Amino acid sequence: MSQYPEAANKLIDQLSQLPGIGRKTAQRLAFYILKSDDAYIGRLSSAIIDIKKNILFCDNCGIMSEEGICHICKNNDRTDKIICVVEQPQDIYAFEKTNSFKGEYHVIGGVLSPLDGIGPDDLNLEKLYKRVKSGMEIIIATNPSIEGDTTSLYLAKMLERLGAKVTRLARGLPVGGNLEYMDELTLARAIEGRTTI
Amino acid sequence: MSQYPEAANKLIDQLSQLPGIGRKTAQRLAFYILKSDDAYIGRLSSAIIDIKKNILFCDNCGIMSEEGICHICKNNDRTDKIICVVEQPQDIYAFEKTNSFKGEYHVIGGVLSPLDGIGPDDLNLEKLYKRVKSGMEIIIATNPSIEGDTTSLYLAKMLERLGAKVTRLARGLPVGGNLEYMDELTLARAIEGRTTI
Repeated sequence: MSQYPEAANKLIDQLSQLPGIGRKTAQRLAFYILKSDDAYIGRLSSAIIDIKKNILFCDNCGIMSEEGICHICKNNDRTDKIICVVEQPQDIYAFEKTNSFKGEYHVIGGVLSPLDGIGPDDLNLEKLYKRVKSGMEIIIATNPSIEGDTTSLYLAKMLERLGAKVTRLARGLPVGGNLEYMDELTLARAIEGRTTI
Repeated sequence: MSQYPEAANKLIDQLSQLPGIGRKTAQRLAFYILKSDDAYIGRLSSAIIDIKKNILFCDNCGIMSEEGICHICKNNDRTDKIICVVEQPQDIYAFEKTNSFKGEYHVIGGVLSPLDGIGPDDLNLEKLYKRVKSGMEIIIATNPSIEGDTTSLYLAKMLERLGAKVTRLARGLPVGGNLEYMDELTLARAIEGRTTI
């Protein structure tokens, strides 16, 4: 027998489908789980089942929520004149941690990527267009990648037609970064976007 | 809210207890699981529960087994005159894959490590001493680390008293390795252990 017992193989197969988990890592995780106590195994397996059961996505903006409409869309202290457009539901937590954005969000669920066959119809755009009113500001916060930039250009064109002011996040040096190790593109953007002190 | 919904937090907490999985990786895995279909979630959670339920450890040698005595200890084609002593149950699969060892195994379940408070009584040694008979060969296949070597020296002394011939795995260049990148200790061992061609 050069193969693991069947129950171990099954778990290794399932774990290696997770992103960033190769077969060797899956083996290490499976053996760790095998050695864990029953309490941990119970907590882990029920947490896996519960995440899907207990988390909904807001009908309005698409972020994770425990109700049909999320607490951000419901919150009257936040302005509905600014919408921050993000790729994924989890992106909003990065913004919320900064405590410096008091508008609403909209999750489009991905980026335009012709090579992967993802066009405008595959993104959550119709709901966004319905939310946009003339005079609103829309911050397009897609990732600073080629697809993210393509998507933001496309969205800017569409949203400007609806009378919105479209902005995007500043490009430049990350705080705490080191000039010596900065890549050329980031540095070029930082020079382009230089501001007076 | 800069925090994820509770169900997501719970899963992230559980996942980040796994070895080599930090909080960021746990977040990525949790969001992947959240987006997976119910079939995958069912397979993953039941594989986690089943591994512990369906895998036993052999009463004789301590390797993973689906019965009380494993198929290796039961197998009459394998000699019981040679026992290969390993640290962990999963180590035996590395040997089985080589197809060049036809003896039995014994899992001691760790290594001596005074700093971590692990002494001889914490390892599965009594059962090993009972299996050893005069004239047998015991290959000590602990990992080539300081603790592994300490453990093998200790075991060699104990097992020689029982009349066994104690050996350990050869140290030297790994096949496919590159001299230029070999560390000094490995190279020193390879010189010490040089053989005639």
